[in-house]
Amino acid sequence: NNRIARIELRDFKTRQILGPIPNVSGNHGSTFVTPNTEYVLAASRFSIPLPKGTVAPLENYASQYKGVVAGISVDPNTGQMAVGWEILMPPFNYDLGDAGKMASEGWAFWTCYNAERATGKLEVTATQKDRDYIVAVDWKAAEKAAKEGKVKTIDGVKVIDPKDVQGVVYLLPCSKSPHGVDVSPDGKYIVGSGKLQSITTAFNFEKVKTAISKKDFSGQEDGIPVLKYESIKDAEINVGLGPLHTQFDDQGFAYTSLFVESAVAKWKLGTWEVVDKIPITYNIGHLATAEGDTVSPDGKYLVALNKLSHGRHLTVGPSQPECSQLIDVAGEKMKMLYEAYTEPEPHYAQIIKADKIKAIEVYQKADSKHPNAIWDVKDARVERRGNSVNVYMVAVRSSFEPNKIEVKQGDRVTIYLTNIEQTTDELHGFGLNEHNINVVVDPGETKVIEFVANKPGVFPFYCTNFCSALHQEMQGYLLVGGGKPGQGQQAKAAGAQQ
Amino acid sequence: NNRIARIELRDFKTRQILGPIPNVSGNHGSTFVTPNTEYVLAASRFSIPLPKGTVAPLENYASQYKGVVAGISVDPNTGQMAVGWEILMPPFNYDLGDAGKMASEGWAFWTCYNAERATGKLEVTATQKDRDYIVAVDWKAAEKAAKEGKVKTIDGVKVIDPKDVQGVVYLLPCSKSPHGVDVSPDGKYIVGSGKLQSITTAFNFEKVKTAISKKDFSGQEDGIPVLKYESIKDAEINVGLGPLHTQFDDQGFAYTSLFVESAVAKWKLGTWEVVDKIPITYNIGHLATAEGDTVSPDGKYLVALNKLSHGRHLTVGPSQPECSQLIDVAGEKMKMLYEAYTEPEPHYAQIIKADKIKAIEVYQKADSKHPNAIWDVKDARVERRGNSVNVYMVAVRSSFEPNKIEVKQGDRVTIYLTNIEQTTDELHGFGLNEHNINVVVDPGETKVIEFVANKPGVFPFYCTNFCSALHQEMQGYLLVGGGKPGQGQQAKAAGAQQ
Repeated sequence: NNRIARIELRDFKTRQILGPIPNVSGNHGSTFVTPNTEYVLAASRFSIPLPKGTVAPLENYASQYKGVVAGISVDPNTGQMAVGWEILMPPFNYDLGDAGKMASEGWAFWTCYNAERATGKLEVTATQKDRDYIVAVDWKAAEKAAKEGKVKTIDGVKVIDPKDVQGVVYLLPCSKSPHGVDVSPDGKYIVGSGKLQSITTAFNFEKVKTAISKKDFSGQEDGIPVLKYESIKDAEINVGLGPLHTQFDDQGFAYTSLFVESAVAKWKLGTWEVVDKIPITYNIGHLATAEGDTVSPDGKYLVALNKLSHGRHLTVGPSQPECSQLIDVAGEKMKMLYEAYTEPEPHYAQIIKADKIKAIEVYQKADSKHPNAIWDVKDARVERRGNSVNVYMVAVRSSFEPNKIEVKQGDRVTIYLTNIEQTTDELHGFGLNEHNINVVVDPGETKVIEFVANKPGVFPFYCTNFCSALHQEMQGYLLVGGGKPGQGQQAKAAGAQQ
Repeated sequence: NNRIARIELRDFKTRQILGPIPNVSGNHGSTFVTPNTEYVLAASRFSIPLPKGTVAPLENYASQYKGVVAGISVDPNTGQMAVGWEILMPPFNYDLGDAGKMASEGWAFWTCYNAERATGKLEVTATQKDRDYIVAVDWKAAEKAAKEGKVKTIDGVKVIDPKDVQGVVYLLPCSKSPHGVDVSPDGKYIVGSGKLQSITTAFNFEKVKTAISKKDFSGQEDGIPVLKYESIKDAEINVGLGPLHTQFDDQGFAYTSLFVESAVAKWKLGTWEVVDKIPITYNIGHLATAEGDTVSPDGKYLVALNKLSHGRHLTVGPSQPECSQLIDVAGEKMKMLYEAYTEPEPHYAQIIKADKIKAIEVYQKADSKHPNAIWDVKDARVERRGNSVNVYMVAVRSSFEPNKIEVKQGDRVTIYLTNIEQTTDELHGFGLNEHNINVVVDPGETKVIEFVANKPGVFPFYCTNFCSALHQEMQGYLLVGGGKPGQGQQAKAAGAQQ
């Protein structure tokens, strides 16, 4: 659905979901970020007529359907995301990306397939040509063009048309049907592999810049110059069958996953020599080295993210788990260390040193800003205003206060529930029987639970997140009375009420 | 929400969800089954006025609130569940259960707490007495009473009132606030522990039967006889602090989890001697030995399911994973083998020999009974009848047929999607962009996808379950046209359509 989420690493919670992103269709080329998180990259995997809602016949796919590559801006103070700029692209399928860094700082890259602009059975129609492309965007130029208004406005956002604005986007010919594109730690090499061939190409970014300045082009696509392959490549590395994705270590080596061969190839940047290969259980897709996407990889470990796992597990029905494998890459030869199951489908990952993440375990009382939080059981209360009932509730080992809520049928009930624990792992849950309500409240957190009490009866509420030996005793009752006898599905008055 | 699900172990899919179960409130005493799966046990954790929908003041809790223990019948041929019988119980909190077997075949057991019939802050009010109870139900007698009509009908199901029907249910006094109740493999011992004390009690079922026949009672609760504790217990085992749950091996040993002490105690049935103890990382709850709930446990391994995991992991925010530990119990001394994270909160588990599960990996074409399944791309088609569009679609590596669906805005679209793969792990997915539709289809399975095409535009659909090197090429287009220009949010006519 063309969305990007931002998760705060302080508490590992989602703070924003941006989308559907205008004009981007099937965002697959995400979420790669520029070195200082100026932009998060996004791109259309499926070209469509624009703006969204437009219909054009598939026969006119080559001319009336459009792809989009985009930079989603990130506010350096708040992290808030918004669409920065978009670029109108030919109707290819934009796949994966990476941001330039160091020598290639200021550039963004995406692979694309279906340079044939084909429709129908793509596994045949989109694999006719020997070359697809890597898209190279000078995002500082894109930013400038957007600022200077050299844009069309489509669906409310600024879109650069390369036919009108030169110098923003170029195409690098690449082996056909590429998947990953990966920038080396020093930013000098742009590495791309065609998944239907057996070579990985290392493009020299200096040569890319020279070709651009010399207009050393072999053609164009919808006004976008195509650079001459022979002028920009430094090497074709014979890694093996089905190369998908490349990662880097701290010793100048690169590691390419080989889907068809079910292996990882280790090769040297600069000499382009394949120095080692290690078999993987089955059909490796992506892979991750420790901080391997940064300017200073840590080396030591590599994780293979395998896309299929034939025969690696006991059968538990048609849906099978996938597996990942941990490999020691510190020495000359790669060594297999460990295998673990993962949920299908493992897709991209980052390995980061634990001490770089400063996560909290509780929300401090001093930081509590919720206007309806209460921190003392003395303040626990039920307040009625007309048909609205506000409950100020505390959860603390091992009870809720108040533990009785009496309302009338039809009342709107709002519970402000504060977990006043300040101890790690002391979460509480609030489950309300037969109301489909179950909320987790972290230590120091306040949550709001709203519902209309439209069923008469007595409904227990209880802690649903194990908290102590007396967790089971942490319960209370909601009494919904005042309904006319016979009203509701099973309403009967067995006792006086209110 | 008082429900029980039945999962078919042939393909690990849910076949039935029964519930909300009438009269049962907060079913916690599930899902324990009788030896031949005649019944699945169920019980109210939270007593309420009955029938549901009735309101009675909490001041009258002791007399007007009722618990229920129930036997959910299981059809031996189809597995279909239905309410068999229910028994009206005092307003205690019914917790966990187990079925009698061998010597105690025909009986069902549940623990309960809050014999005080208290409300308010249960952690105080429900822990006043030294004893709570284990409920013992002669379910063959309950079955007979239900068959003979010795029941009230409440909310459409047969409910036995122990005041009217003798000999169906008894109470065994137990250490206070018990959690698990566990029947030894030979059925001779009923083992219960009070989580607030340090002993586990082994009741001798022969003595229970003798006490019943001799009416050796110490009192009654709402017409239910309470057996005399001293007459039915064989031993109080000093296991340690916070005993919760007991499992058995093939050598005549029992293993009791100690929540407060964070340990597992190993003791001998018959001699009642504690022979070993092993520390657990933190706050063990339940535990499972290999086939430990059967008449012939396998021994060898025990898994400790720990409820909290302070300090066992890197911090990833307020919500922490729990952990489980694998212990070798084959020798005289228990040996810790392995620790792994589990999702909170690990609660009960069974270890079963893999060769007892005969799971399939694909649905055989020969078994396909779906009336709208198609198994040949030649049969793939789009049929219109008025405003209804039926799509007969095939998914097979790596394309959908048809890969183009043209409809008019407002049409009701029904896609019968058959994955004609007969190869293990070759699942396909069907995702439709910006429609919140994403369906997984197993090999040989047919799924039905229904929606109203109320947004104009061109919407890609694509495989969402990785299937092959050309998985990314497995896509098609839904074109929703015929809308008046300007209709819908962004409708524009950019090309001729239909």
